[in-house]
Amino acid sequence: VVEEAMSPAGSSEQDSLSLLFLGLVAAVCLGLNLLFLTVYLICLCCCKRDAEPESKRPHSCCVTWTAVVAGLVCCAAVGAGFYGNSETNDGVYQLLYALDHANQTLAGIDSLVAGSTLQMGASLEQPLARLNEIFAARGDYVQSLKFVQQAAGNVARQLAGLPAWRDVSADLTALAGSVGYAEYYRWLAYLLFFILVLAVCLLACLGLAKRSRCLLTTMLCCGLLTLILGWASAAADTAAAVGTSDFCVAPDKFIMNLTESDISAEVVRYYLYCDQSRSNPFQQTLTVFQRSLTTMQMQIQGLVQFALPLFPTAEKDLLGVQQLLNASETSLHQLTAMLDCRGLHKDYLDALIGVCYDGLEGLLYLILFSLLVAASFSTIICATPRAWRHLASRDRDYDDIDEDDPFNPQARRIAARNPARRQLRSFC
Amino acid sequence: VVEEAMSPAGSSEQDSLSLLFLGLVAAVCLGLNLLFLTVYLICLCCCKRDAEPESKRPHSCCVTWTAVVAGLVCCAAVGAGFYGNSETNDGVYQLLYALDHANQTLAGIDSLVAGSTLQMGASLEQPLARLNEIFAARGDYVQSLKFVQQAAGNVARQLAGLPAWRDVSADLTALAGSVGYAEYYRWLAYLLFFILVLAVCLLACLGLAKRSRCLLTTMLCCGLLTLILGWASAAADTAAAVGTSDFCVAPDKFIMNLTESDISAEVVRYYLYCDQSRSNPFQQTLTVFQRSLTTMQMQIQGLVQFALPLFPTAEKDLLGVQQLLNASETSLHQLTAMLDCRGLHKDYLDALIGVCYDGLEGLLYLILFSLLVAASFSTIICATPRAWRHLASRDRDYDDIDEDDPFNPQARRIAARNPARRQLRSFC
Repeated sequence: VVEEAMSPAGSSEQDSLSLLFLGLVAAVCLGLNLLFLTVYLICLCCCKRDAEPESKRPHSCCVTWTAVVAGLVCCAAVGAGFYGNSETNDGVYQLLYALDHANQTLAGIDSLVAGSTLQMGASLEQPLARLNEIFAARGDYVQSLKFVQQAAGNVARQLAGLPAWRDVSADLTALAGSVGYAEYYRWLAYLLFFILVLAVCLLACLGLAKRSRCLLTTMLCCGLLTLILGWASAAADTAAAVGTSDFCVAPDKFIMNLTESDISAEVVRYYLYCDQSRSNPFQQTLTVFQRSLTTMQMQIQGLVQFALPLFPTAEKDLLGVQQLLNASETSLHQLTAMLDCRGLHKDYLDALIGVCYDGLEGLLYLILFSLLVAASFSTIICATPRAWRHLASRDRDYDDIDEDDPFNPQARRIAARNPARRQLRSFC
Repeated sequence: VVEEAMSPAGSSEQDSLSLLFLGLVAAVCLGLNLLFLTVYLICLCCCKRDAEPESKRPHSCCVTWTAVVAGLVCCAAVGAGFYGNSETNDGVYQLLYALDHANQTLAGIDSLVAGSTLQMGASLEQPLARLNEIFAARGDYVQSLKFVQQAAGNVARQLAGLPAWRDVSADLTALAGSVGYAEYYRWLAYLLFFILVLAVCLLACLGLAKRSRCLLTTMLCCGLLTLILGWASAAADTAAAVGTSDFCVAPDKFIMNLTESDISAEVVRYYLYCDQSRSNPFQQTLTVFQRSLTTMQMQIQGLVQFALPLFPTAEKDLLGVQQLLNASETSLHQLTAMLDCRGLHKDYLDALIGVCYDGLEGLLYLILFSLLVAASFSTIICATPRAWRHLASRDRDYDDIDEDDPFNPQARRIAARNPARRQLRSFC
């Protein structure tokens, strides 16, 4: 499956085929389970008439104990499921958190690039034009301003060469939104399923304790529904677990394939591996930005030192340009930090840990839960008709007298004649 | 408690005093619980002789059901405890993970600073000395080399002004080591405690089902031990939860106080708040580093362009210096990225989320577990002597005949005479 899913051509089709296959396997399991239950119940009904009444008595305690053990297994299953549900939720939220942080970084890069481009273009244009007018008489000062203009043009050209992250950011936001939506309903659905399982278990206990046929019938119907839901959940979880582990075996290749058309492979590789020996694909841009900035700062510094005493009217514009260059330097440092692979690579690792450790672990617990629920409900469904037979035989034996009814004189007489019986029953 | 713990003077003393107080409260609770149990048991023993045998019969089923409910509460408590234990573990491991990542960053900064200092000092010295010899005849080239030397000295001075993170890193490593060690044993101890609780519950069930006095006595002893352990665990967890929430109310102030002596407040504040409007305290250093580097690169570029044709022997040294400067530029970009607050601030937030959300949530579940265990074991310890009395009365009534023994002829006779009894018991 892994190799199939990872092959570049037709990987998604083969992926969905293999997941469909898993769904079919689960459906076959459910069918076999239901077939077995039907055959068992039919056998029980057919043999019921022939069996001699005396021989089945020793099994009655066995039926109750089976139901009790199945109920306990059910509770353990709900415990495991609760843990798995919470783990999966944790993993998915870690993924969402990492996606959100990566998104912030990408948006930050875009806004810094846009801001710097503006600073080096439109914001610089007006004061430089005014300074050009003021210094028009002095050729060397105008030459200095021309250098500054050239350097600003250089920076703007380099910044234009940086990749725009807007589309990637939008994709990540959409992904985070749909994952968060699906996860919320998945989590809620499992919580309701746990409550259903516990309610059916309680119903079984009450039905056996109160010997109520109505409760037992309701329990049987709900139990059948729970059994079907359990198998469906097992199928869905197995498919999700296989899909996730397929992804987790080689997430880098998957992401390389996915981003092939949008971002250059070199950039993706830089962020995916974040190897300090690998050269930063943005180093050229950052170096040119810094050098141009230094050049501009030196030129402006020279003008402030030598031209300002001669042209006092230029003070406001010169100092304005100087401030702009200092702000650009701050932006450059932030841009250097954001473009560095460490931040985004950490987000990538966090997301992977969330999906491939917590998420997958939670899914395995949920599969365990589904299988345990299927097993215990099969057992309960098998055990209930046997309890039914005991109810029937008891009704025959006791002529429909409710022994627990304190207003029933016969029951009170029995209790008075045989005082130890109630106490003995209570210890079974 | 929060205000006390956060006050700068004597905070740790007052902290431990308040935690000690919590321990005392738990000890008092345990004492009251044990006192109540003792009084209850003494009353039960004293009244036992006077009570008429008939009157207690209707309560026998009640005793069993009480024990069953207590057992179920116990199982639910273990479920909650298991979840809490796992949550706390998750939170602590998130803290350790964040500490480890922060440590890597700090070590990376230190190693980059050390590497850059070496590059600007010793590594540059030899080729510059050789170039000085080669260019000795040309004053302007020697002047260029002197500029390079000065710029390198500037960079080395600025780098020396950066804070050394060695001590902080060592502290963090020590903290991570001791937290990891303590957490491992805490986790293991709770796991063993869960197993003990389940084992005692099982013992109680078996003791009641088999009507074995030996099992019930063992269960009572273990139950008392579990009760004491439960209260101790409640005390420890409450103390830990209060301490953690004290820290979580104002973690920044706590860290500011803690690092007062080691790191300048400005740097700590920069990393704690990571406000983009706040100026980077390392900007000066980074700017000087970059400008000096640009100056050096320009000077060396000029020498390569004009001096190399005249002095071909200088080629190796000049190109070596150029490579060195390029390597320094890469280091500078990495240093800029690492010194930026985003990375360390993210680690800080991750650690806080681990401790203050997952960790605290887990502790609250563990407190719930401890209280539920204390409650259910108190109930079981109260209920067991009542079951004992029924055993005693049964022994009197039945003259010590084991009714479950299939080789006991009287039991078989009873079963034959009253065939519905076993089946009825099984439904209780």
